[in-house]
Amino acid sequence: MKIYDVEGFPNPLRVRMALAEKNAMDSVSFVAVDVMKGEHRSDAFVAKNPAASVPVLELDDGTYIAECSAIIEYIDHAFEGISLTGTSAKERAVISMMQRRAESMVLDAVATYFHHATVGLGAELETYQNKEWGIKQGEKAQAGFKYFNDILTTNTYLAGDAFSVADITLFAGLGFADFANVSIPNEYTELIAWREKVAARPSLQ
Amino acid sequence: MKIYDVEGFPNPLRVRMALAEKNAMDSVSFVAVDVMKGEHRSDAFVAKNPAASVPVLELDDGTYIAECSAIIEYIDHAFEGISLTGTSAKERAVISMMQRRAESMVLDAVATYFHHATVGLGAELETYQNKEWGIKQGEKAQAGFKYFNDILTTNTYLAGDAFSVADITLFAGLGFADFANVSIPNEYTELIAWREKVAARPSLQ
Repeated sequence: MKIYDVEGFPNPLRVRMALAEKNAMDSVSFVAVDVMKGEHRSDAFVAKNPAASVPVLELDDGTYIAECSAIIEYIDHAFEGISLTGTSAKERAVISMMQRRAESMVLDAVATYFHHATVGLGAELETYQNKEWGIKQGEKAQAGFKYFNDILTTNTYLAGDAFSVADITLFAGLGFADFANVSIPNEYTELIAWREKVAARPSLQ
Repeated sequence: MKIYDVEGFPNPLRVRMALAEKNAMDSVSFVAVDVMKGEHRSDAFVAKNPAASVPVLELDDGTYIAECSAIIEYIDHAFEGISLTGTSAKERAVISMMQRRAESMVLDAVATYFHHATVGLGAELETYQNKEWGIKQGEKAQAGFKYFNDILTTNTYLAGDAFSVADITLFAGLGFADFANVSIPNEYTELIAWREKVAARPSLQ
């Protein structure tokens, strides 16, 4: 099993956190993709993932799996350990919903802000920018922070009492927010406390 | 089990198709949401789904599940019949990836085109529009049509030999494309033939 990614980027972090939660980091070899030189947009890479984004998982039979939620679905089913995606119908649905919300309300919103309303990865890579849309998505991320802070006043983790892939997505989203200078208001104390709790997990040491 | 939706809208269609594939339409009562009058943005509805969108599933214990992929995850695990989300790690990952691609490359792209680059649901509901972004997403949908046409030159269904939730998402996306006047080029014969095959399924009669 191989993973094509860039260490330290937000989406690659999601998959690495999932692997670490499963104690499976040693089962994978990592192949660095030179995103800053545009390697993710080369014909060879787009053949692996038409979205031209990292990470991509290559299975031993040559199948390429892109989209973090799908890669983590694979990891969760392929390795022993805690369940990241749930087992019962209700658990699976709640986790899937909260994971998708963490993507759309925070991580993807911050990414769009970063790539459209700031210099992003620089003029050579940011070949199309829509600043107004980027700013709108930055506002969406702020609303997302409030939503998750509210959720965490009653829930221990995003989907209830247990850590899940939804927490991984939001944690990576907050890291991206820091990087993009989208600040998390100090008043969101539940969100900030949850973030410290996740940061202290063994998988992140 | 209750579903809050609007019959005939693209996302509600996804959930209704999944229920029909499972022969489970009779297990659900449907509650109509008056989207054209903005009911989906009322405080009462936003408490059910912060994204202010239909459909929303209400479980018998009062839990609300939003996001079509999560609702269908629930349906697939709660009812007997064909598997819509796969069983092995690899099947689940490939289906999840293709489902997400059908959302981002076609259905969501067409939705953004519709709500931003056309009159959409009318001036009262379309309170913020970014026309340039809408047009860009219309172009993304065209690239999505090409991608899926290519996939269907070798695959019977989006994720391989078996019908899955990925096919449901793309089918609903093409219906939305018709509605939004995003035309599917005649040269995409594999995509058009696949669409006719899906339209002929018993679940859609």
